[in-house]
Amino acid sequence: MDYNEDTATDAVLASFEETTDPRLRAFLRLLVPHLHDLVFEFRPTLAEWEYAIEFLTRIGQKCDDTRQEFVLLSDVLGVSMLTETINGQQEGTESTVLGPFHMVASPQRKNGESIDLLGGARPCVIDATVLSTDGKPLVDAEVDVWQCTEDGFYDVQQPGIQPPGNGRGLFRTGEGGRFWFRTVVPSHYPIPQDGPVGELLKATGRHPYRPAHVHFIAKAEGHRALTTHLFVAGSPYIDSDAVFAVRKSLLTDFTESRDEDLARQYGVTVPFVLATPRIVIEPEEGDGSG
Amino acid sequence: MDYNEDTATDAVLASFEETTDPRLRAFLRLLVPHLHDLVFEFRPTLAEWEYAIEFLTRIGQKCDDTRQEFVLLSDVLGVSMLTETINGQQEGTESTVLGPFHMVASPQRKNGESIDLLGGARPCVIDATVLSTDGKPLVDAEVDVWQCTEDGFYDVQQPGIQPPGNGRGLFRTGEGGRFWFRTVVPSHYPIPQDGPVGELLKATGRHPYRPAHVHFIAKAEGHRALTTHLFVAGSPYIDSDAVFAVRKSLLTDFTESRDEDLARQYGVTVPFVLATPRIVIEPEEGDGSG
Repeated sequence: MDYNEDTATDAVLASFEETTDPRLRAFLRLLVPHLHDLVFEFRPTLAEWEYAIEFLTRIGQKCDDTRQEFVLLSDVLGVSMLTETINGQQEGTESTVLGPFHMVASPQRKNGESIDLLGGARPCVIDATVLSTDGKPLVDAEVDVWQCTEDGFYDVQQPGIQPPGNGRGLFRTGEGGRFWFRTVVPSHYPIPQDGPVGELLKATGRHPYRPAHVHFIAKAEGHRALTTHLFVAGSPYIDSDAVFAVRKSLLTDFTESRDEDLARQYGVTVPFVLATPRIVIEPEEGDGSG
Repeated sequence: MDYNEDTATDAVLASFEETTDPRLRAFLRLLVPHLHDLVFEFRPTLAEWEYAIEFLTRIGQKCDDTRQEFVLLSDVLGVSMLTETINGQQEGTESTVLGPFHMVASPQRKNGESIDLLGGARPCVIDATVLSTDGKPLVDAEVDVWQCTEDGFYDVQQPGIQPPGNGRGLFRTGEGGRFWFRTVVPSHYPIPQDGPVGELLKATGRHPYRPAHVHFIAKAEGHRALTTHLFVAGSPYIDSDAVFAVRKSLLTDFTESRDEDLARQYGVTVPFVLATPRIVIEPEEGDGSG
């Protein structure tokens, strides 16, 4: 009955012993000692505890249909990326974080369509291939794409300025596992700073910027889904992504081209920017892949 | 640049190195390794991570002016009580959790007044004394009191049924450090179960009950404020409080009396219930007390 520094952790662990779900039980057995150790080591004052309660409450209350402040908190603490790393592919393209802007369904688009509904200044073509780890092209794979504008904003951040679906597209690969679309080169951008996570960054002297990138989720029959970004090689902040999502293997050349024949094939004018990434995904376990 | 299982924790710690506030910096230095170790040890799937995000979000969104679901989460994980324990008095009455129902200001009341505005079935008198650790009675101490009804509900849980301020009072001690009031014996009660914390209790097979208690915050000049409860000795759930707040030293006899003279002095009818607790608070540091 007497709850004190010596009995506290065991008392709380004992209270969760009847948990039937094995994963929830395993989680609580790990969570409780970490949480209590954090309290023992930090020894918060009551005012600090109250501040933490209020901070977490404001994070939940900042969330809505187009804003996920808890994902942002997980991102800036490196937890999202760690979870991605643990669940990443063994072979093939490396994964990275989903991020907080995959909140709306991407409109279905045909290969060659533009996802830039605003007519940006600098045309860009992404001409990509989806392959299995054995090198076989994956036809009829689904690829969900989303990115920000040349000004660094996603459509959901600028309702009334950007039409819904700007910068987003749901594509299917054709022959040779190819999918391609027209767009603009995304800008580096700050993560939202008008909430509690922005306060945390300010209080800790951290900048809020993410290097320029395009998000992808690739899915194909018999394969594991892959969530990743392609980073624009040479972008500012590539060495200090606010959400720790950069991997060297995901740096992608976005190269300026003045090839008029190529421009004509892609339906753009010169100069344009071209990226030709390969996205390699693993067969699901039990498919003979090991 | 390459964020992986080996570099992750150091990368996040390094990002917080510019933090100027020493307590925030100390906290982040402890938080980040615990959080990352929890991820390494549990190895959440992405679906489990998403569930955690959604669970925390719903907790924040359940909070309003009269409901604090994050305090409730902290309570059922034993964190609130651990924080109280760390900050407790060295001598004098032990502290315990504030709880989630101290959200509205208690109305000022005079000694002898009733805080039971509903006219409960079983009158109760709490005739209490506030003392300093050296035994000296503390006159003009402020004591904030709040409790639930005989049915186990606080006023803020039953708007329209209970008048605001029912079960609450802000008293001042008089001669001899005494304060006293009329009330009812509070019931044991379940913590709110209609939110995410209720789901957690159900999923883990834990009951939601707290043993019967009256909350107190005592403040006196030159003394540390004390937040505590008096528990009704013999109440159901005294051995398994859902928020781990029971301490043996806080068990208080609520004794039935048929003493007609005493009843007359207190302005109640027989039989009534009487509790005569002593609340002992510590001088502030630097007052020569230690």
